[in-house]
Formats: sequence, C-alpha cells, structure tokens
Amino acid sequence: MEMLRIGVIGAGRIGKLHVENMIRMTGLEVAAVSDLMLNDSLKEWAAEMGIPSVTADYREIVQDSGIDAVFVCSSTNTHVQVIIEAAQAGKHIFCEKPLSFDPEQTRQALEAVEAAGVQLQVGFNRRFDHNFRRVKEMVEEGQVGSPHLIKITSRDPYPPSPEYIQVSGGLFMDMAIHDFDMARYLAGSEVVEVYAKGAVLVDPVFRELGDIDTAVVTLTFANGSLGIIDNSRKAVYGYDQRVEVFGSGGCATVRNDYPNSAELVTEAGVRSDKPLLFFLERYQQAYIEEVKQFADCVRGGKPVSVDGKDGLKAELIAHAAKRSLLEGKPVRLEEV
Amino acid sequence: MEMLRIGVIGAGRIGKLHVENMIRMTGLEVAAVSDLMLNDSLKEWAAEMGIPSVTADYREIVQDSGIDAVFVCSSTNTHVQVIIEAAQAGKHIFCEKPLSFDPEQTRQALEAVEAAGVQLQVGFNRRFDHNFRRVKEMVEEGQVGSPHLIKITSRDPYPPSPEYIQVSGGLFMDMAIHDFDMARYLAGSEVVEVYAKGAVLVDPVFRELGDIDTAVVTLTFANGSLGIIDNSRKAVYGYDQRVEVFGSGGCATVRNDYPNSAELVTEAGVRSDKPLLFFLERYQQAYIEEVKQFADCVRGGKPVSVDGKDGLKAELIAHAAKRSLLEGKPVRLEEV
Amino acid sequence: MEMLRIGVIGAGRIGKLHVENMIRMTGLEVAAVSDLMLNDSLKEWAAEMGIPSVTADYREIVQDSGIDAVFVCSSTNTHVQVIIEAAQAGKHIFCEKPLSFDPEQTRQALEAVEAAGVQLQVGFNRRFDHNFRRVKEMVEEGQVGSPHLIKITSRDPYPPSPEYIQVSGGLFMDMAIHDFDMARYLAGSEVVEVYAKGAVLVDPVFRELGDIDTAVVTLTFANGSLGIIDNSRKAVYGYDQRVEVFGSGGCATVRNDYPNSAELVTEAGVRSDKPLLFFLERYQQAYIEEVKQFADCVRGGKPVSVDGKDGLKAELIAHAAKRSLLEGKPVRLEEV
Amino acid sequence: MEMLRIGVIGAGRIGKLHVENMIRMTGLEVAAVSDLMLNDSLKEWAAEMGIPSVTADYREIVQDSGIDAVFVCSSTNTHVQVIIEAAQAGKHIFCEKPLSFDPEQTRQALEAVEAAGVQLQVGFNRRFDHNFRRVKEMVEEGQVGSPHLIKITSRDPYPPSPEYIQVSGGLFMDMAIHDFDMARYLAGSEVVEVYAKGAVLVDPVFRELGDIDTAVVTLTFANGSLGIIDNSRKAVYGYDQRVEVFGSGGCATVRNDYPNSAELVTEAGVRSDKPLLFFLERYQQAYIEEVKQFADCVRGGKPVSVDGKDGLKAELIAHAAKRSLLEGKPVRLEEV
Repeated sequence: MEMLRIGVIGAGRIGKLHVENMIRMTGLEVAAVSDLMLNDSLKEWAAEMGIPSVTADYREIVQDSGIDAVFVCSSTNTHVQVIIEAAQAGKHIFCEKPLSFDPEQTRQALEAVEAAGVQLQVGFNRRFDHNFRRVKEMVEEGQVGSPHLIKITSRDPYPPSPEYIQVSGGLFMDMAIHDFDMARYLAGSEVVEVYAKGAVLVDPVFRELGDIDTAVVTLTFANGSLGIIDNSRKAVYGYDQRVEVFGSGGCATVRNDYPNSAELVTEAGVRSDKPLLFFLERYQQAYIEEVKQFADCVRGGKPVSVDGKDGLKAELIAHAAKRSLLEGKPVRLEEV
Repeated sequence: MEMLRIGVIGAGRIGKLHVENMIRMTGLEVAAVSDLMLNDSLKEWAAEMGIPSVTADYREIVQDSGIDAVFVCSSTNTHVQVIIEAAQAGKHIFCEKPLSFDPEQTRQALEAVEAAGVQLQVGFNRRFDHNFRRVKEMVEEGQVGSPHLIKITSRDPYPPSPEYIQVSGGLFMDMAIHDFDMARYLAGSEVVEVYAKGAVLVDPVFRELGDIDTAVVTLTFANGSLGIIDNSRKAVYGYDQRVEVFGSGGCATVRNDYPNSAELVTEAGVRSDKPLLFFLERYQQAYIEEVKQFADCVRGGKPVSVDGKDGLKAELIAHAAKRSLLEGKPVRLEEV
Repeated sequence: MEMLRIGVIGAGRIGKLHVENMIRMTGLEVAAVSDLMLNDSLKEWAAEMGIPSVTADYREIVQDSGIDAVFVCSSTNTHVQVIIEAAQAGKHIFCEKPLSFDPEQTRQALEAVEAAGVQLQVGFNRRFDHNFRRVKEMVEEGQVGSPHLIKITSRDPYPPSPEYIQVSGGLFMDMAIHDFDMARYLAGSEVVEVYAKGAVLVDPVFRELGDIDTAVVTLTFANGSLGIIDNSRKAVYGYDQRVEVFGSGGCATVRNDYPNSAELVTEAGVRSDKPLLFFLERYQQAYIEEVKQFADCVRGGKPVSVDGKDGLKAELIAHAAKRSLLEGKPVRLEEV
Repeated sequence: MEMLRIGVIGAGRIGKLHVENMIRMTGLEVAAVSDLMLNDSLKEWAAEMGIPSVTADYREIVQDSGIDAVFVCSSTNTHVQVIIEAAQAGKHIFCEKPLSFDPEQTRQALEAVEAAGVQLQVGFNRRFDHNFRRVKEMVEEGQVGSPHLIKITSRDPYPPSPEYIQVSGGLFMDMAIHDFDMARYLAGSEVVEVYAKGAVLVDPVFRELGDIDTAVVTLTFANGSLGIIDNSRKAVYGYDQRVEVFGSGGCATVRNDYPNSAELVTEAGVRSDKPLLFFLERYQQAYIEEVKQFADCVRGGKPVSVDGKDGLKAELIAHAAKRSLLEGKPVRLEEV
C-alpha cells in the first residue's frame, strides 16, 4: 500500500484525536503537526506519538513537498485561508466542519480546491457511524419506500464553555450543522425551506451571548418530503443521537449506543446504564472510518464521499435556520 | 355500587365499541341506543348486547328520565346540539372528539354544560393509555426535571375513505387533535404558538379534497418549552404512537405496543412482529379506562379529568395549525 | 351460536377467575357453582356474577341435566373422582392441573373420559399465551429448523403459604408441571429422560416440608434434542416466564410482559418498570383464550388441543423429576 | 511508563491477534515471535508488524534476556513445557486456555510458576468483556442479593474443522472451559458437582471423532447455588454469548452485541441485523483489555486477576463434565 504522508494543522482536541487514530493505521504516516500554541506539553505529546516535525507555523506543513495531505483542525476562522494555500500547494485536504461561517468565503475555498484538482473532505463524521450508515443503506435499498419524513434527535450531554459559545458561530452552525448534513444524506434530496424555533432553557448564558440552547427545525426537501431536527445543548443522560426515516414502505430507526447491555431487574424495576457520554465515545469508530475512507480515496484517485459542496450546503441550511429564527418565519434556501 | 344508566347516541364504530365495553362493566347499564340509520342489523346487534331500547331519535334518549348519562358518538356536526339538549335535560355527557369544528359553537356547548351543572368528558382516550399515563407520571414526579421538549409521533396505518376525509374536518381537526391534547397533557402548559407544515405524500386524493396526509407541527408552550408532532395518514407498518418528553433532568419515552415479544434470530437477522394494527387494538384498554373513570367521577361527583375546556383548547390548536399551514407562517393561539 | 351451560366446581381463586372471564363471553352461561366452603361471601359473589345456582355439593352440578360442561377447580385430591362422575354423567370437562398426584389414578380418570366419549381439557393455560404461541408457530413453520434445545425460565414472584406447600405435591408437580407441558409443546417430541437438581435457597420452610424452592431440570427428548428448565419460588422482580427454542436454523425467544414500555433516562441510567407481577396479570388473556377454545371445541365437536394425555404426560415427567432429585441421577420416563 | 518487551510463542490466529493488538498499545513492544511453521508469509507479516526477530524455535525467545514476558499461543500440548521453561527463565507468562489437557501436568506448570515467582495469566478473555464485567460488578455490589442461579448461553456460529476437533480436547475442554470459568467468576463460589448431558445434533462427524456438538451442563456451587450452561457448536445466527445471574434480590442479564442498532419496520414486521459473528468480533475489545491488565499487573507487581489456579479449576470442571457425560450421572469435583 502506498504510504500517505499527513500534516495536521491545529492540535486541539479533534486534531489530537485524528493523530491518535492515524498512528494506529497502516499506510498512513503523520509527518508533521502545527499549532499556534506550540508549547512543551504539545512537543512531548508529539514525541510520544512519534511525529518527527512540530511547528507553530502551518505554512511549513503546507509547503513541505514530502506531505501529501493536510488535516485542517484549526479554528474555523482560519479554515478558508489554510484550504486555499494547501490546495494551491497541491495537497489533498481533510477539513473539520464548518468550512467557514460565510458562504461566500466557503465558495472561494471550493474554487481553489477545484482549480488545484485536489480532494477536499469535510469532517461530517456521523455519515461513517455504524448505525446511521445502516439506516442509509436501508433507505438506498428502497426498504422504506419513498421517504416522507426524516427525523433527527441530536442532543449534547453538556454545553460548551461561554468562551467557546462566543466563537462557535451559534447552535445551528456549530452543532446542528451535523444534523443538516445528516438530513440531506438520509433524504437523498436537497433542503429547499427551513423553519427554526429556538429557546434558552438550559442556561441564560446562551441568551446573553446571543445564542440559543434548544432548537426545533423543520425542513422541506426538494422531493416534497419533510424533516425535523431537535437539538439541545444539555441532555444530562448522555449524548442523544438518533435518526428515523419514515417512508411509503416502512420506517428505519436506530437507538443510541450504550457502554454495555447489562440489565438489572429488581423489585424497584429494570435498570441499565445510560448511553455513551459524548462524541468521542459514540463516534470513536466513525472518526477512524472517515479517515480511512479519505486515505483510500486519495490513494485510489476516487472522489471522497463527503466533499466541499456537502460542506457548503450544510452551511447554507445553518444560515437559513439562523435567519428563520430571527425573522420568526420559514426561509427558502434560495434566499440565503 | 350505584348503577349508572347510559344512553348511547350514535352507533357507528366508536359507539358500538363503547357499548361492547360497557356491557362488561359492573355498575353500568346501557339502557338505550339511538342511530339515524336504524336498520335490522342494528336492532339485532342491540338485542345481542341486551340493550332494551333502540331508536332513530336521540331525543328519546335525552328526554328519558331513567337515563343518567349520554355518550355522544354521532357525527361531529351534531355534537353541539346534542350536548346542549342533554345538558339542559340534566344528563352527564361523554362526547367524542372534536366537540365541534367551530370554537364559537364549542363555547356555546360548554356554557350549556356549565349552566346545567352536569359533567362533560371529551373522548381523549390516549390520556388513559398505560404507556402515556406512565410518562405523565414520570413528568409529574419531576423525574425529567423541567420539560424542554415534547415530541409526539402519531401515524395511522391506513387512510380513511375519501367520503370520510371530506367530512373529517381535515388532518389537524380529525387526527392531530389527539396529539394536541397529548402535548398539553404532557407539557403541563398551554400552547401559545403553532407552526404547521403539511404535505401530500400518501395519496393525491387528499390534495383534491383540500386536505394533507403528512404533517409536522411545532408548538411553543407558555412555559417556554417546545413541542413537535409528526403525523401521517399511512404508516404501513402499523399504528405508530409514541411520545418523548425531554427535560432538564432526563428523558421519558415509550415504545409502541406489539402483539407479542417473540423474536426469531436466523442467519438473515432478527425478526419480530410489527406493532399493533390500529386504535382499536392499541387503545383497547384505554377505551375501557376512560369510561370507567367517567362513570366513577359521575357517581362520586368528582370532576372528570378531561373536560370540555380541554376539548376546546385542542380545537383551538387545530385551528391555529390549519391557519399556519394556509398562511405559511407561525400563528399565535390568541389570534384564533 | 349454541349456548354452552357451565357448572364450576370449586370457587377458589382460579374457579372465580374462570367465572369472571366466562360471564363476559358470548355463547357461554355459568349456570351453577359449587364449593365445599359455601358461605355468605360466596353467595354474594355468585349473585353479583349472576349465577342462578350455588351449592356445597358438586354432585348437584354433575347430575344437573341442564349443564353441558364442568370446570373442575377444586383441590387436586378431588379431581379424579369429580372427573369420573362428570364423565359418566356425559359432561365435557375442563380440569385444572395436575389431574392428580398419582399417574395410576390419572389413568383411571382418562379411561372414564374415553369410555364416556366426552372431552377433557387440562388447564395448561400457558399454551394460550400470546408469546409462547407465537414461538410455537415459528417452530412449526420450521423457522428454527430442527430443534436442538428448549430452554424455559419459570420463576414465581413469591412463594405460596406453608399450608399450600404441604398439599401442593411439591415444586415439580405444582409449579414445574406447566413447564414440563410447555417443553413437550415446544419440542414436538416426548421426554424420555429427566435429571433434576434442587436446592433450598429461598426459605428453609421448604426443607422442613420436604420440598425445594429452586430447581434446574435437564430433559432429553425422543428426537434427541435437549431441554433445560429453571424454577424458583421467589423472583422478587416479578413473574419470570420466558422460553427459547434453539434449532439448526435459528433461535426463537420471548421477553417477559411489562405493564408499560415507558423508559426514563437520566444521569443515573435507564429505568423502566419490572415485569407483570404474577400469573393473574401475565396470563390474563391466556385464561380467556383457553376457555374460548374449550367452548369452541365442545360446541364444534372438535378435539381439544390440550387433553388428558397431555395432563398425564406432564405428571409423569414431574414424577421422574422427583425421583431424580431423590436418587441424585437421571431417570428414564419408562421407569416411572 | 516502563516498556515491557514481549515474545510471542505461536503465531496462529490467536497469536497474531495478540500481536496486532499489542503493536497499537503504548508501553509494550513485541520483540520476537516464534512459530514451528516459519515460512515466508509469516516473515512478511512479522515485518509488517515491525517485529525485529522471527524464529522457529521458541527457546530463543525463552532464553532472550531482553524479553520480559511471553505469550504462549502455541498448541495446547506444548503449553506446559513452554510455561515451565519460561518460568525458569524468569519470564512472566500469558497463556491461552486450557493450560493443558491433564490436571497433573497443569499442576506441574503451576508449581514451576510459583517456584520462579513469576506471574501467569490465563487467556479467559470473557472476564474482560464489557457486558460480563458489568454483570459481575452488579453481583459484587450485592444488587442481585445472594446468587441462586448462574445461567450461561454459549453457542458458536459454526463448528471447527474435523482436524481441529480431533486435537481440541473435546467440547468441554475446548469450548465450555470458558463458560466454566465464567460460572466461577460470576458465582463467586467453587463448583462442587457437575452433571453433563450431551448430544450430536449438528454434524455426525462429532460422533465419529468421539465428541459431541451440543451440551447442557448443571453445576452445583459450594455455596449451594446452581448453574446451567448450554453449548452448541453451531448457532447459525451468530455467536450467542449471554449470561444471567438470578439471586435473592433480583436478576442481572445481558444481551448479545450487534453490529448496529438499526431497525426496519415494515408491513412484514420488524427486522434488524443478527449478533456479531464470532469471538474475534464480539471479544475484540476484551482481547485488548486482558493484555492491558496483564501488562499493568506485570509492570506494577500486582497479581493478575485470572491466574494459573483459575486455569486449573476450569480444567477440573471440564474433566468432571467429560466423566459425567460418559457415566451418565453427576460427578463431584473431588472425584477428579
């Protein structure tokens, strides 16, 4: 197998996660990592991971001719610039979501990617989840008939810090964007209209920062089918990630994942453990799968399955949701 | 136990169901039944049920001094007049939903009931379902904390006939009205705003008759929490009736009911039987419970748990949903 | 439908249960009831049930020419005599299990039944349970292939009184006899060998009375397949009644029944209600079904599905189990 | 973390599995591998795994002073000799089950281990399974009260080859030995008596080779509680690995693991995927955990949690089961 040499830009939680997964894969080599906050702790970690090069300047990675592909795991406001430079340097790109907060900028990044003829995969990891992928298969095999309704439950176990909320782009851009992508993925049709209703029920800090913590979004797809998403920043019982697809032929559905299936039955009733805590636990394998598929596509010259256009479309839905929330009425996608 | 003598007005499917349940109860006696379509088949059925009096004219029942309470199971357009006359005759009343298609008329019926000092229970049978009642208990015990989201799945296994669709009052008034009541019941708070999105995905006949067959409704409650209802006139896999209540302390949820729990595991996977077919199967026991509670309340002089105001409120939500669908924007309850 | 006139002999818990079910059925009439303990309370109950005749002497029922069939619900030691007299009087018979504690006596009863050409159904109610019947169907349809192993979990929620234990015939004859019948029913093959292991783990009173409260029984069937039954007199979490059939083509299995499907998910985990309490709750519908089928067979002249031979065979297995326990080794059915 | 240098003796399926897991762990280094069948394919594999030394002679590993611990994954008939030599060379030892087919030999191995003061862990991987470990926790926390019955379902998806059957030691020694260990683990008490019933229902080849393919084993524990194990060499629907612990306070139980939780509900019923195929899938994580714990114990000088005595005890139960099967009666452990 051809060896793929990877540079990782941004070594926060998600950047480190990718590195820790990649060093266990065959056919991949993490050749370099960059982070603005280059400190001793990071250097130690890189040494432990066996990464030969660590830098504060991502351009060293972008310009390193020995590197085949970059993982863009830095903060969202840096994505577009890094993508453009990496594309121009001929690197294939894996970028975390969202590509940017501004569709116009995202379009510029996509143009650079297209002009350079490189691949760009967006980190919509949930498409690689064992449960959701199986539902998608059922839908594609026609087992639910023609889809009528896509229903997505997506609730985080605890809210991010106020610091993060401020730069997150808001619930729709930061959190629901995964669900917008999942809705498109499962429906097999584009969203044409969005109605979003939001509330602050978890913590008043969201209101103070101009954000919401609870949301219900109604989607209308081009094929006439409907979608519902509900989000919360705090589901105390664990990460709640479920989908249902209802169609003319039936319904496909998934449960959450649990740490074990042990059940205790006593006079007091039946008890079992709550769902897996959060995305690191629930999507552990999905994070590995998305990277494997990216590497396979890059090596084999096949188009990646979640590309820049998918990133852009989810962003546009997030923008429409935001506007719908502000204006208190449904918004057509063509308006944003 | 004091014997309660019942007159049943309207002997269609639901009227007959109530009779068949009541003749098996102690403390109740079905003394008379009326139906506009008084034919031999109905007379035979009444004889088999041991009902002494059968008539085409409901007034004979209303004016029968030996009758304590009436069940109004005739078509919706007759409800108000029957309720007013029965109330004025001092009968307690159990009336199927909706009370009427017109809030103004419903209000007149409620006034007559109040003036007469009789009891009026509305046939929101689902409140008496073993599953939903248990969720309600969990909510009332504070087990889910303060509610954030009420989520209701409500899908019929097959659509009614075109003849019925025409006089049904439409999906919101005929079908979703149960869900509007369930939403209020579970939220413990009144609905203040409704946004409804509809589609015709099951059968074009709905469009031809000015109705829809698929709907998604977003509710906002007075306490700030949100609600989602999804409806379909055709879930081929059986009656789909589930609720979830998400709150600050957790989530309460139910599955559908199934005819058995047998599971077959083979090389092809795991198979089990689909959910119970429709309302007669799923709510068999709930139909019995609602009548028992009605009888208990009437006998004991206690107020019924689902009264005329509950009927009116669900109707108002249905009206708001209808208007929201037509106008393509959210509607405040105070507007209808 | 031809009316079937029933006399009920023995009005303890199970006799009353049958009466309360039968008065709600069409085509059946409970004409008389007898009980040795004829007191005012019983007379009141009979009046409430609308039973015209109440007596302390079962012979009045047996000799009443207006009665078509008798339900033998008296204590086990009276069964054989009542069956013989009822058969000779030309009555069809429904008898609770076991027919007797002595196979020789049971054989005499069966001979009387055969000589009289009447029907005898044994009260193995579990064959009429929605779950077990569905497993049986799966087995009969060949869905599990040829059976390899029948596995039965059968645990009561609380032990009977010491008084009852003394006259019960012991765990195998009183309790496991249902499971021995279920094993034959599901296997579609006769038991040829039994190995029983017992213990007193619930309450020392069982030891004092020469009984056990916990048992594990291994069965060998004529077709070579195996069976396992485990019994306990005390499963504090509710009546535990499950079966599994493993075969060359797969496995059919059932869960217990629960009062509702509500699930509460909180930080502490997932909670739901324990299984239905005991046989009155779990087999409520099965008790109705067995009587309906008995009445149908009697009316239609069709052989009942659980007859005297089934009763005898289960008793023989119970005897073999008892001997195996005493002797500490497997016992062949042909030995008892 | 101190680096532990490992030599792997025997590079069949299980030896390779351990290597592939270990090269992904921090603090471990696979320094050498030996296999009698040293061919090019094995050398290639070792190179790919980055193992510096490959040999046909396990003694090179045992005598390599740079090696801290050995994994004994060779065929069972070699275990004792390798263990003794490795112990004498001061290596810590991880040995696959069973230690040997002969308790006397196993005892010699344990003596050598004890004399050398090294650690010996036996490969009872199931103790490290997320589900079984959780049940064990529930039992240890007293949640099921005092145990009454341990019930183990253990069925392989397909039988081994005739060649393997011949050298396997038979169903009890090869397959059920895991269940014998699990029974001791969950019961927290030693087995004192065994009754085994076997059958050939899967494939006549088992009979020809003097083995069985289906078994039911009844265990009696020193504390008076009972156990049941059922085994099959062919559960076509996938690896069936479940346990239940019934006690005075309740019941703890687990389901199988499944590849996903997707459920399809159609007119034909409910369908989902069958359980994970076999041990490599089901115990993937357990194989990792057992090695991590072994390494932790060796590094920290703490006793391993599954040691040679556990290995011996499970072997003795297997011997008792074999004798019980042959003699057709229960066998006391003290007899073997």
